[in-house]
Amino acid sequence: MFMHNKRLQYTVRVGESNPGLANLMLEQFGGPQGELAAAMRYFTQSLGEDDPGRKDMLMDIATEELSHLEVIGTMVAMLNKGGKGRLSEAAEEEAELYRSITGAGNDSHLTQVLYGGGPALTHSAGTPWTAAYIDTIGEPTADLRSNIAAEARAKIVYERLINLTDDPGVKEALTFLMTREIAHQKSFEKALYAIEPNFPSGKLPGDPRFTHTYFNLSQGEGDMRGPWNQGEQWKYVETLPQQLAVDGGDGSSSAKLTQPEAALVAKMAARTASDPSLDPVTGAELGSDGVGGPVARLEKKKQ
Amino acid sequence: MFMHNKRLQYTVRVGESNPGLANLMLEQFGGPQGELAAAMRYFTQSLGEDDPGRKDMLMDIATEELSHLEVIGTMVAMLNKGGKGRLSEAAEEEAELYRSITGAGNDSHLTQVLYGGGPALTHSAGTPWTAAYIDTIGEPTADLRSNIAAEARAKIVYERLINLTDDPGVKEALTFLMTREIAHQKSFEKALYAIEPNFPSGKLPGDPRFTHTYFNLSQGEGDMRGPWNQGEQWKYVETLPQQLAVDGGDGSSSAKLTQPEAALVAKMAARTASDPSLDPVTGAELGSDGVGGPVARLEKKKQ
Amino acid sequence: MFMHNKRLQYTVRVGESNPGLANLMLEQFGGPQGELAAAMRYFTQSLGEDDPGRKDMLMDIATEELSHLEVIGTMVAMLNKGGKGRLSEAAEEEAELYRSITGAGNDSHLTQVLYGGGPALTHSAGTPWTAAYIDTIGEPTADLRSNIAAEARAKIVYERLINLTDDPGVKEALTFLMTREIAHQKSFEKALYAIEPNFPSGKLPGDPRFTHTYFNLSQGEGDMRGPWNQGEQWKYVETLPQQLAVDGGDGSSSAKLTQPEAALVAKMAARTASDPSLDPVTGAELGSDGVGGPVARLEKKKQ
Amino acid sequence: MFMHNKRLQYTVRVGESNPGLANLMLEQFGGPQGELAAAMRYFTQSLGEDDPGRKDMLMDIATEELSHLEVIGTMVAMLNKGGKGRLSEAAEEEAELYRSITGAGNDSHLTQVLYGGGPALTHSAGTPWTAAYIDTIGEPTADLRSNIAAEARAKIVYERLINLTDDPGVKEALTFLMTREIAHQKSFEKALYAIEPNFPSGKLPGDPRFTHTYFNLSQGEGDMRGPWNQGEQWKYVETLPQQLAVDGGDGSSSAKLTQPEAALVAKMAARTASDPSLDPVTGAELGSDGVGGPVARLEKKKQ
Amino acid sequence: MFMHNKRLQYTVRVGESNPGLANLMLEQFGGPQGELAAAMRYFTQSLGEDDPGRKDMLMDIATEELSHLEVIGTMVAMLNKGGKGRLSEAAEEEAELYRSITGAGNDSHLTQVLYGGGPALTHSAGTPWTAAYIDTIGEPTADLRSNIAAEARAKIVYERLINLTDDPGVKEALTFLMTREIAHQKSFEKALYAIEPNFPSGKLPGDPRFTHTYFNLSQGEGDMRGPWNQGEQWKYVETLPQQLAVDGGDGSSSAKLTQPEAALVAKMAARTASDPSLDPVTGAELGSDGVGGPVARLEKKKQ
Amino acid sequence: MFMHNKRLQYTVRVGESNPGLANLMLEQFGGPQGELAAAMRYFTQSLGEDDPGRKDMLMDIATEELSHLEVIGTMVAMLNKGGKGRLSEAAEEEAELYRSITGAGNDSHLTQVLYGGGPALTHSAGTPWTAAYIDTIGEPTADLRSNIAAEARAKIVYERLINLTDDPGVKEALTFLMTREIAHQKSFEKALYAIEPNFPSGKLPGDPRFTHTYFNLSQGEGDMRGPWNQGEQWKYVETLPQQLAVDGGDGSSSAKLTQPEAALVAKMAARTASDPSLDPVTGAELGSDGVGGPVARLEKKKQ
Repeated sequence: MFMHNKRLQYTVRVGESNPGLANLMLEQFGGPQGELAAAMRYFTQSLGEDDPGRKDMLMDIATEELSHLEVIGTMVAMLNKGGKGRLSEAAEEEAELYRSITGAGNDSHLTQVLYGGGPALTHSAGTPWTAAYIDTIGEPTADLRSNIAAEARAKIVYERLINLTDDPGVKEALTFLMTREIAHQKSFEKALYAIEPNFPSGKLPGDPRFTHTYFNLSQGEGDMRGPWNQGEQWKYVETLPQQLAVDGGDGSSSAKLTQPEAALVAKMAARTASDPSLDPVTGAELGSDGVGGPVARLEKKKQ
Repeated sequence: MFMHNKRLQYTVRVGESNPGLANLMLEQFGGPQGELAAAMRYFTQSLGEDDPGRKDMLMDIATEELSHLEVIGTMVAMLNKGGKGRLSEAAEEEAELYRSITGAGNDSHLTQVLYGGGPALTHSAGTPWTAAYIDTIGEPTADLRSNIAAEARAKIVYERLINLTDDPGVKEALTFLMTREIAHQKSFEKALYAIEPNFPSGKLPGDPRFTHTYFNLSQGEGDMRGPWNQGEQWKYVETLPQQLAVDGGDGSSSAKLTQPEAALVAKMAARTASDPSLDPVTGAELGSDGVGGPVARLEKKKQ
Repeated sequence: MFMHNKRLQYTVRVGESNPGLANLMLEQFGGPQGELAAAMRYFTQSLGEDDPGRKDMLMDIATEELSHLEVIGTMVAMLNKGGKGRLSEAAEEEAELYRSITGAGNDSHLTQVLYGGGPALTHSAGTPWTAAYIDTIGEPTADLRSNIAAEARAKIVYERLINLTDDPGVKEALTFLMTREIAHQKSFEKALYAIEPNFPSGKLPGDPRFTHTYFNLSQGEGDMRGPWNQGEQWKYVETLPQQLAVDGGDGSSSAKLTQPEAALVAKMAARTASDPSLDPVTGAELGSDGVGGPVARLEKKKQ
Repeated sequence: MFMHNKRLQYTVRVGESNPGLANLMLEQFGGPQGELAAAMRYFTQSLGEDDPGRKDMLMDIATEELSHLEVIGTMVAMLNKGGKGRLSEAAEEEAELYRSITGAGNDSHLTQVLYGGGPALTHSAGTPWTAAYIDTIGEPTADLRSNIAAEARAKIVYERLINLTDDPGVKEALTFLMTREIAHQKSFEKALYAIEPNFPSGKLPGDPRFTHTYFNLSQGEGDMRGPWNQGEQWKYVETLPQQLAVDGGDGSSSAKLTQPEAALVAKMAARTASDPSLDPVTGAELGSDGVGGPVARLEKKKQ
Repeated sequence: MFMHNKRLQYTVRVGESNPGLANLMLEQFGGPQGELAAAMRYFTQSLGEDDPGRKDMLMDIATEELSHLEVIGTMVAMLNKGGKGRLSEAAEEEAELYRSITGAGNDSHLTQVLYGGGPALTHSAGTPWTAAYIDTIGEPTADLRSNIAAEARAKIVYERLINLTDDPGVKEALTFLMTREIAHQKSFEKALYAIEPNFPSGKLPGDPRFTHTYFNLSQGEGDMRGPWNQGEQWKYVETLPQQLAVDGGDGSSSAKLTQPEAALVAKMAARTASDPSLDPVTGAELGSDGVGGPVARLEKKKQ
Repeated sequence: MFMHNKRLQYTVRVGESNPGLANLMLEQFGGPQGELAAAMRYFTQSLGEDDPGRKDMLMDIATEELSHLEVIGTMVAMLNKGGKGRLSEAAEEEAELYRSITGAGNDSHLTQVLYGGGPALTHSAGTPWTAAYIDTIGEPTADLRSNIAAEARAKIVYERLINLTDDPGVKEALTFLMTREIAHQKSFEKALYAIEPNFPSGKLPGDPRFTHTYFNLSQGEGDMRGPWNQGEQWKYVETLPQQLAVDGGDGSSSAKLTQPEAALVAKMAARTASDPSLDPVTGAELGSDGVGGPVARLEKKKQ
């Protein structure tokens, strides 16, 4: 069960109203790399997890991410507080208010007109948060890798936001949030490597003919070799004939159909064939200027 | 700040594996009327709220909804537990496993193949949860009404789910969750009516010519009168002429353009006019069977 | 069946081209609180409704909302008319045109570049309208409450837009539209209270142990009492032990598994256990600067 | 302004309850090729249109599509009517009701559990309708082509639905709706060809070096010639060197940077370079079974 | 199988950093009319196609569209290159950097803060690309019409972008891309008209009573006649009685219910009836200012 | 530039028509862990990448993923081929066809009715593919970690699909595709560790007070210690007072407002206060059965 204490995990001190900055901060509130995504990712994994250690760790971190969601959302609310009063009480002339709404920068107009200055679960350009951001699939060695990557991404987006403000209170709280992503990544790394083996994920082994092969499919000047495609552990395949139909077949596709199925498919094919021996006049030609004769002849003025 | 205790708000006892029922339950986990929507609705309102009473109440209830999200998600995980092991360890023949996946009912195949049996933030037909479900706009008399309605909807969806299972443990936990929606609705009603006045929402008064008017725009047999359109408080407008251009104007639209704008608009209009005096041959006619002459003449066999 | 008359329900007079304002108005055209959402909400409810009074009222109002959608969309088109000609005929130098597109404010660049100045079914930051905005569930006491809330929200968004413009024609038409939301809310209220009883929604009663309970889950300085949690009708539950496992159980979760299911789950658990007794070297340590010895030893320069 | 008459454009007679069929019909209610998409496509085009003929035609057809939306939605409601009562009144045992919900076929469980048997604006697998389905861009020769294509698609989906039912009332109404798509396509074709010229769309001519070129980019057995790439109007380009960098340049990309920009880009590149001369031990190797020595040496049992 | 050559199909030369222009270009990268939509449209059609000519043509063009996606994405990357370094290395003071991020125009802040200056698969206002943009239905005469329309739309969006920049390298590459849409449209037209007949799409004929009928559903001043509704091929239906229930029925809807179904529906109707004979006091009245007596009497101050 | 060869990278041999299996396979075609997501992830990263080695590797793998998209899509098309003919030619009685459509399993009805049997870019429950699945942020140490995780997830989903079919041709091709995910993961690992250092991502260091702290926020029976929260590198924080306001402040939030802003906020607060000293009668009480007196008195029968 969740409980809440009204004190924040980190004190929020905002230096002045700034709806434009508030809007950028939404990236970590309702954006793809933000705290709701993090909290829901770990929370749902914890619910589905049977391993007691991971289950506990995931809920510890999910709970902290909810607390971070509260911190970032509180910053958004504080940065919007002045603008919220202005819009709600319509204290200025319309033209002035219009300028303050559209001139605050980026998409803060949406935060104000649609959401009334409250923190909304959208990214900084107004797209509503979606669970499509969550990539959990219910297998721990894959999900922990997803978590590691998610923490690395969140760290970077915080870094960008920190670089964009000189409000010391905002900067300090963002630095705390950024730091915690580093700590979480470390926990997830430990939990991953405490599964042995953890690579490759799952039970089925790969087909040994193709686990060490690198296909050089993008060719031309700029081809590079590096540890990702050279060394004794790699078979580097370069020429086209080696890359096509690597199973040794002819690279075609086939499906066995029943007799009635084959008959129907043939019927459909005949009915909808594009006859390559035609050179039909087309709608585009009818619609072209100066195609001349045939179209002209076809056009008949209305009586 | 949020904290978590590993005990649930309500004990979950699942009688047997049932991935089909698990999938239906997702409605209240990642569906539009579900607990995540509820929790996020109240949580974001609380962050943006300045009134101390409402701020506290909203966070109390948001925290409880998160705890309910945990209860319903735990039920989903428990109902899927058996199937999860089966798929992960691939203990059966493929044909058998295929049947168990696709035959469990409704969209449980997604929960299993994509999400590995974990509780996913989707509705029962697999659409990811979206913050578009949240209708908060940052004005308390509107938002409290939205909350009241949301609780009423959630109550009904729980009622439907309760009617669909005879597993006593599931039924009992669902009944608890349903009950709490009733209690929450009552709290939101009290908070709404503790704002005086609360109708109409906002500051601007309506235009008194139109606040008491009812337009009978759907006409014919079946027209009904009731308190929603009759009585001394209503002006019932029935005939078409009374309903068009109720401002007394001509019902047209106009925009003042600058001279250069008008010239460009005219140029665009001329260039793209559909000339009503033509009767052009069209692509559809070219493509019709048996249109005959003109098309036939146009077709030229390829040399 | 629907019919249409070319006169608008309210005459639209736009004072000058203003793509930025046009874009903000999209909020009520293709936004979540806008007229399409309203029209489709009531239209679909009417189709599914069997009660003759509500069915008629819902279609009356749905039809009016479609007429409002036409009014607001017409305003958008009028406000964009000048810009549309400019872009279509490319009458200016590129740099000038670029400035006029990106400088008009907020997301009007999308309306112009992607939609060619036509009214698009998006909100003011470009997200396409989605039926996820519609919260109808097919139960009248819940749906009428949803409608009441929706009208309150729309009223507020109109109020905000009215505050943002000093074009008298635009202001007047918006005031008409805002006013009608008030009237509609009144109709829906009457229809709701004409159902007796209407609270709680649905057939199933709540569990009487929990219908009058308020859980104080957000604790600390700032706790407030008010009619939403105090008075003889409320049982106020404050301490943690009273809030956990309120059913009197242990707050755990359990699922009965068949013997083979249990065996598979155990097998999966063993295979994927995170062994808490390990202290493994992780990828993060490999990737850290200055971890020193172990990583250094592992790195081998390419021959 | 829109008005409504309670009589349908086509009488709906449903032979028996069939939630599974109802669910398939949603394809033309809230699906991508359905009537809402059609109505909104033409309605928004009409609002943005200045040409009086097209403006009128688009609104005529938009209004008819709304009337069709009503017909198809009414069919859905009628097909669900029996099931709606059953779920709402919970007249059966739970197990029986569960079977009737999940056994009705396809995604009808969503229609019932989430939407209570009402017609929902989703496609037949439950995805909410989105304005992303509408491809209007505000240029008449493009938009009319989009409309022509949309009518052709809708005609086919109706044809498929007609083939799936033997209920004569349903079949007849669907045939009416399908027929009207044919008529609408004809109107749009006429309006398109009444613009002269209409191909290519817009004002800017193509670069004459590339308007008649066909690049054979998919090569190998199965290459076909036909009117789409042969004849005097086509230049057929077959070999790779002719297809790369067709402007005669070197096919590279370049951006002029200012001096400070270039310095920063260089600094970023240095900081984040993947050094191709390394052969680092990776996380995957740490996690592999049997990599042996290095990993083993790194692992230290917890004290 | 796909292969790649590092040379572009068209050389990209960008004159200077311009994140605002980069963001507008996203329209053709991840926007609804952009190159990913085109490539995926034709690619998926080719996979599902059995006609050898169309299958080959569709893959030829799909492959070219992927190459165009690369060209436009490369332009976006080049236009953002300078800004990317600046943000990554945080070379400026925060206030300066903030201004450069939010002042670059339109939604370029998202490209920079969320996507780090890389080309993102969104449209120019930040909505992620969705396969809902693809309207393929697996019937060639419909799909080819969809392709024709898609090419016409893409041509126009390129035209608009060309008009917005005076960077000669950008203008030239955009002109190439625009030109190819013209060529593709021509190929699709040829393939469509090489199917005979191709109108109407599909197998089922329309109901001859309604294939030539035009319903004048939008009435009033502004009614226009043109080839889309006049001439011998059209039956123009104007008055309301002729348009309602065109099947000759009464325009009502009906569903045959079983006895138990009818009983349940009746029970539900009784339970949820809105009684038109009541004039209930409503929540809105409770919440109104000055309603006076009844509300006042109800309010009881807390003891 | 991309090129295409008509031979597949792996020969596809389908044993019999199976629309249900085809639908499950969509998971790897248009699902979140599928090949389009993989191809677009690496393709867009390559375009935005400046490091020559990574740029080349990313395009090599992107191109291979496109080729895999072709393989999986071809399998879907082959599995649907029989059903496609049946639906298109409507060869059976309607009731028979209906059964074959809705009885094929899971959501194959959508593939057939909406998409005509072609491979659609949706996941197995019909949600259209969205670029929200792509988590690229334009920083290599984060993006490579995202790629590593993505490959691990895709490997698992293939493993699940392999377990679900006994068609040897399908199984073999799926095994090839699964194997390649392993190889790709290895390449991405090598590229990540060839960046030194790569942890933490980005330039800014964490706040050293919080990089090694673990907050035990989920408490109670089940608390576990493991390498993720114990050992000399961790500071384990357990009690509530240590977790609140870890900055040493009071955990509150504050924003400095200008004088006019503060005045407006106060005005708004006063206008919208929920007065905790009231005990208002609410709408819920009006609507409750048996509330008795006050409501009864309010109700007035219509004259």
